[in-house]
Amino acid sequence: MQLVLDYLKQNQPRFLAEFCDYLRFPSVSAQPQHKKDLHACAEWLVAHCRQIGLETKLCATNGHPIVVAKTPGSKAESGKRKAENKLRKPHYLVYGHYDVQPPEPLELWSSPPFEPRIVGKIIYARGSTDNKGQNFAHLKAVEAYLKTGTPLPCDLTFVIEGEEEVGSESLSDFLKTNRRELACEAVVISDTGMPSPKHPALGYSLRGIIAFEITLHGPARDLHSGGFGGAVDNPAMALSQLLAQLRDKNGRITIPGFYDDVAPLSAYERKEYARLPVTDASLQKMIGVKKLFGERGFTSSEQRSARPTFEINGLTSGYQGEGSKTIIPSWARAKITCRLVPNQKPEHVRKAVVAHLKKICPPTVRLEIEAGHGAEAYLVSPTGPQAQAALRALEKAFGCKPILMREGGSIPIVNQFKKILGADSLLLGLGLPDDNAHSPNEKFHLDCFEKGQRMSAYLWQELAG
Amino acid sequence: MQLVLDYLKQNQPRFLAEFCDYLRFPSVSAQPQHKKDLHACAEWLVAHCRQIGLETKLCATNGHPIVVAKTPGSKAESGKRKAENKLRKPHYLVYGHYDVQPPEPLELWSSPPFEPRIVGKIIYARGSTDNKGQNFAHLKAVEAYLKTGTPLPCDLTFVIEGEEEVGSESLSDFLKTNRRELACEAVVISDTGMPSPKHPALGYSLRGIIAFEITLHGPARDLHSGGFGGAVDNPAMALSQLLAQLRDKNGRITIPGFYDDVAPLSAYERKEYARLPVTDASLQKMIGVKKLFGERGFTSSEQRSARPTFEINGLTSGYQGEGSKTIIPSWARAKITCRLVPNQKPEHVRKAVVAHLKKICPPTVRLEIEAGHGAEAYLVSPTGPQAQAALRALEKAFGCKPILMREGGSIPIVNQFKKILGADSLLLGLGLPDDNAHSPNEKFHLDCFEKGQRMSAYLWQELAG
Repeated sequence: MQLVLDYLKQNQPRFLAEFCDYLRFPSVSAQPQHKKDLHACAEWLVAHCRQIGLETKLCATNGHPIVVAKTPGSKAESGKRKAENKLRKPHYLVYGHYDVQPPEPLELWSSPPFEPRIVGKIIYARGSTDNKGQNFAHLKAVEAYLKTGTPLPCDLTFVIEGEEEVGSESLSDFLKTNRRELACEAVVISDTGMPSPKHPALGYSLRGIIAFEITLHGPARDLHSGGFGGAVDNPAMALSQLLAQLRDKNGRITIPGFYDDVAPLSAYERKEYARLPVTDASLQKMIGVKKLFGERGFTSSEQRSARPTFEINGLTSGYQGEGSKTIIPSWARAKITCRLVPNQKPEHVRKAVVAHLKKICPPTVRLEIEAGHGAEAYLVSPTGPQAQAALRALEKAFGCKPILMREGGSIPIVNQFKKILGADSLLLGLGLPDDNAHSPNEKFHLDCFEKGQRMSAYLWQELAG
Repeated sequence: MQLVLDYLKQNQPRFLAEFCDYLRFPSVSAQPQHKKDLHACAEWLVAHCRQIGLETKLCATNGHPIVVAKTPGSKAESGKRKAENKLRKPHYLVYGHYDVQPPEPLELWSSPPFEPRIVGKIIYARGSTDNKGQNFAHLKAVEAYLKTGTPLPCDLTFVIEGEEEVGSESLSDFLKTNRRELACEAVVISDTGMPSPKHPALGYSLRGIIAFEITLHGPARDLHSGGFGGAVDNPAMALSQLLAQLRDKNGRITIPGFYDDVAPLSAYERKEYARLPVTDASLQKMIGVKKLFGERGFTSSEQRSARPTFEINGLTSGYQGEGSKTIIPSWARAKITCRLVPNQKPEHVRKAVVAHLKKICPPTVRLEIEAGHGAEAYLVSPTGPQAQAALRALEKAFGCKPILMREGGSIPIVNQFKKILGADSLLLGLGLPDDNAHSPNEKFHLDCFEKGQRMSAYLWQELAG
């Protein structure tokens, strides 16, 4: 093991250069013009995995390709074979994604998003924390085993996809088709966060999600606000009044049935929450607001990960250019995503939202609702042997006691791993709360990168028992 | 006079071709890229006025130039000179504007906005009704006098500006500088509408206007809605809730002081309103809404012209592209214009709006308000001799009894004519309610064009008494 750790320590400068090469690909899955860049990024990753010594292939999909890389000689085991052959090593999947969020708005970046910039121990680039840096740490750990000839106590298969930021559409089919080959003890995912460099964390829950696009149609065309203003409802006002009703002054979503299936937090969980080092003051400062706001009766940490949300992601109506244009807009639109928590069913929430909007929509406008991708939340018991092994690996790598936490984000594919492969996921996030994932000036801390490699190296020892 | 009417009748085909040339200039004053087009349009107008026989000059301003064209030998009169010389002809100003609204959204036009298309008796183009067609009708009437050698009973000065759609900023200074030269009995303006081709109208009131841009600032940058959603106010939701409070279910604006100075409608005026041929059903059909909505206690015609409004012209926040982006937007913005009615002071309304928004803005966001151009409403008695002369000219040209009406739109410069030149304005609108002024597929009816020319020809006879 010391060989592995020494190898990691000695090779950080090269790892960083390689990481920069990885970050230079503008692998923005949401934007069609970057299709080629995603392919080039995947090809680079394949070549890199092979160089490390992994048996690697690029799997084409209807969307962007998936990189699959196995430790030499590893073989999946069905439940039956496993029982027959107690001597085979346990098989784990390591999941990651090489695609990134759109970098816009570009003018808010201090340096170009796809030209990595290192300041002290921080590297700035789109995709640095989400998710290239985190999945690369796992690759470097396995490289250390392979290059030092240290026996890996587990068989590993890396699955690194290119559609996470657009709903992982191809991955389900891929898992189904390769169900036997991918059968595993558990899936290891570093695509979330830890509260601080001194608080490594194991995530045991993720929020789900469902997206809506709500459009209110008013007059057949934009109208002159002088000639018609006063006698016709303004769709932008109607939309404001519609949306305004959906959240009360206590931060509760007022849609009947919205909270129907929400599992209450246990006393144990709320105690764990209280251990988190994030204070309201530190959170407020980090995100730059005058005052926090959330559902009454919950701490901000609970609000951010254990409670569902109804979030407006975008508003569009009428004239948005310079100066003014005196019109009554023909229509107004809101893009919405709801974060869901364990037990909530996306379909139930979809129905509740649609029914309520139909009910409260005034007769002066026509309501159009498009419900997009939905994914359930994820919850797993943090007290099982795998979770305990992960906690030990975290403690060894980071040198301090890790905490258990719920994640506010969504990794819809975690449910697919459970459903298709029957495998739970270990969420070993390496991101920091101020890493600006999905925002301008996304960054990754090089301590997280290095300690993440060590954590990964320890993990396979701990998991193998 | 018959010579004049015959000349008009015989020359319609040529007039139409010239009108098309005028419409082809994309003279969009709000868009800097069209500066040259505005200048080219003004130059064309100067050449055209000279060809008609008017003494014409192009007056440079800080913005777009103003075209000034006088009937030969006409001379303004100060009050004193006028008294000394009873034999001089009365001097009238004819105001118009050659600038047009932005044509966007382009995809909603059935044909390109600056390529005039004639279908039956209708001509489609941006600026056709607002205001090129209307001011061109007056030019054609004076051409008929000059080309047939018919003595004009009035001296006329055409003032055709290029900044009406952006607040007529240069015109006030122009009026002040040329106060003596422009001294006149009254200003004739055809830049409004009539209810139908069988209902020619004299407008005796215009609404005023004041513009606001309201921005709510939340987090310092767009935030990941998974990592932070639930604990921080969403500026788009905060904006919706702010705006939603400003109008109640009876269509009343709830801003304290907003209605303070509104002059109530007289019984006589409400009776005149009742004569208007527009029904709720016809209005609803024309603008393509399921149901009208306005301030309770007033007819839709009253709502559209005699009551103030608070209209959202545009909404902007967060992600507006394809698909979804899971962010909490950093800010949200609304563009607003309020239409004002007689007696309301823009400054009072500005203060009332700003004070109320400041009062109700939640502490979770930072409010930024920009108050733009403001203009008072206009109201003049419709019973004076000039108004009566105008009504007679309308009746002769259109062959039916004209009606008196308030206009819902704003022509801020009307107040400047009153303030600087001491002159009332005669609003002889030639537009129809479905002309799509400020909307895609703007149009002008060729009957209005032709009868408008006749009305203008009669007008100078009637005004001279």
